[in-house]
Amino acid sequence: MRRWDTVAIIGVGLIGGSIGLALRKLKLAKQVIGIGRRKSSLSKALARGCVTKTTTSIARGVKGADLIVVCTPVEQIPDHVSEAAAHCPKDCLITDAGSTKSQLVHAIESTLAVRSSERLPFVGSHAIAGSEKTGPEAARADLFAGRVVVITPTSRSDAEAVSAIEAFWQSLQARVIRLSPEEHDAALAATSHLPHLLASALAMATRDELLPLTGTGWQDTTRVAAGDPELWRQIFLANPGHTLKALDDFETVLSRFRTALKIADGSLLAMLLAEGKRRRDAVGS
Amino acid sequence: MRRWDTVAIIGVGLIGGSIGLALRKLKLAKQVIGIGRRKSSLSKALARGCVTKTTTSIARGVKGADLIVVCTPVEQIPDHVSEAAAHCPKDCLITDAGSTKSQLVHAIESTLAVRSSERLPFVGSHAIAGSEKTGPEAARADLFAGRVVVITPTSRSDAEAVSAIEAFWQSLQARVIRLSPEEHDAALAATSHLPHLLASALAMATRDELLPLTGTGWQDTTRVAAGDPELWRQIFLANPGHTLKALDDFETVLSRFRTALKIADGSLLAMLLAEGKRRRDAVGS
Repeated sequence: MRRWDTVAIIGVGLIGGSIGLALRKLKLAKQVIGIGRRKSSLSKALARGCVTKTTTSIARGVKGADLIVVCTPVEQIPDHVSEAAAHCPKDCLITDAGSTKSQLVHAIESTLAVRSSERLPFVGSHAIAGSEKTGPEAARADLFAGRVVVITPTSRSDAEAVSAIEAFWQSLQARVIRLSPEEHDAALAATSHLPHLLASALAMATRDELLPLTGTGWQDTTRVAAGDPELWRQIFLANPGHTLKALDDFETVLSRFRTALKIADGSLLAMLLAEGKRRRDAVGS
Repeated sequence: MRRWDTVAIIGVGLIGGSIGLALRKLKLAKQVIGIGRRKSSLSKALARGCVTKTTTSIARGVKGADLIVVCTPVEQIPDHVSEAAAHCPKDCLITDAGSTKSQLVHAIESTLAVRSSERLPFVGSHAIAGSEKTGPEAARADLFAGRVVVITPTSRSDAEAVSAIEAFWQSLQARVIRLSPEEHDAALAATSHLPHLLASALAMATRDELLPLTGTGWQDTTRVAAGDPELWRQIFLANPGHTLKALDDFETVLSRFRTALKIADGSLLAMLLAEGKRRRDAVGS
């Protein structure tokens, strides 16, 4: 298991804070530098033991790093990677934890390729370990244990960097899957972005006076709608095409339920419900 | 707080079993008779302390009861109430715990009214305390604590019976709301039946090969799809009109999300997500 000398984490929220906690708990890094804009978040991350040192300057924070993980909202990731790459040591590896990949990986690779004709030390990542909770106070050292992390190497990625980033997530006890950025975005549109859209729309469609009549079913089904609207605005805008496609596929299935209700077809309903249950049971928890 | 001599519970699953556990824990009934078709469920309910005695015969089980609670699947409730009413003492009260009310309350009242010109001792109930779990093994004495129970009296209901059924649920620490059966079904279509439909459709729309890429968001949003397809088939068929209406209202909201994605309107998206979050946060947990 590779032990890092200095890992710099840009953005010490739930994901960044959890990476720091895990690195420290598993003794995988001597130093973890927390880099962020807000001093209050940095202080919380330091107090919780997510990081060993903090700074608001990316340039200073990445100076001695051998690994940089960018955990900021998706719209900021390209700029943060670019700034980090300009100030870090030559052999430093860079990854991110953005929930969408296609737009941002291509933006990052275009920027980095201008500076160097070599294979790029950046590999995109997405840890499927989110929560409607945010901030370093929600961070957990075991957030990635048993969870899937998708890494999205491209033809421009340095092969050793890809292996090292894969090993990094595995050292945090995650299961790593390799997909292209496009494949990632198509898959996550169906498994994450569409569920969020439906949860938000369902919460919004429930009139205020009916809220006292909601139970655990409504609460579960709408839980992610409590997530940060700004983070999710950015995610949707970075993956609108695949999300719309996933929504169309969903509507096709939904129309079968609608038909079954309209014509009171009990056996069709039972079949649809059983098929939904089979998929849900396959995932568990 | 009224203490009952003998409460008969027809159907000792999650809801029936929890009523029994609560009655016994709070010392609100001397005897709790568990009535069911399957001896295995009855034995489990007895072993867990949900009931003090069991029988597979409704006629025998309700003979000495002063309260009967029918907790079977919605399609069976009218027959079970009718059979119970034919064999219970004259002053025995009857309620149920069905997730839909309009069809079954009217069916029950029509049957009971043939036998008696008096006000009816039956009052419909629905405890909004479900779960995707089923069976007496999932029963909890505090299942109703702080939860809402809707009771659905009609012009045919005996006023004292209504008060007594209300007090019964309150004694299990529930908050009781009175609605007409129609009002109940319209409200629950939006707060329970539609969420279940969406969860099932979402689970079904997620292709098997994508299931490893699901996270807590998908898991929460689809959780209720793990519920019993047969129970839910019955619920949907007992409330198709209101569920279709709730689905139409949902589609209207969803089309605004669709538009925002299509034209990449970030401020509309942010507004919709914020409004969904406001409603979700208002409910909590």
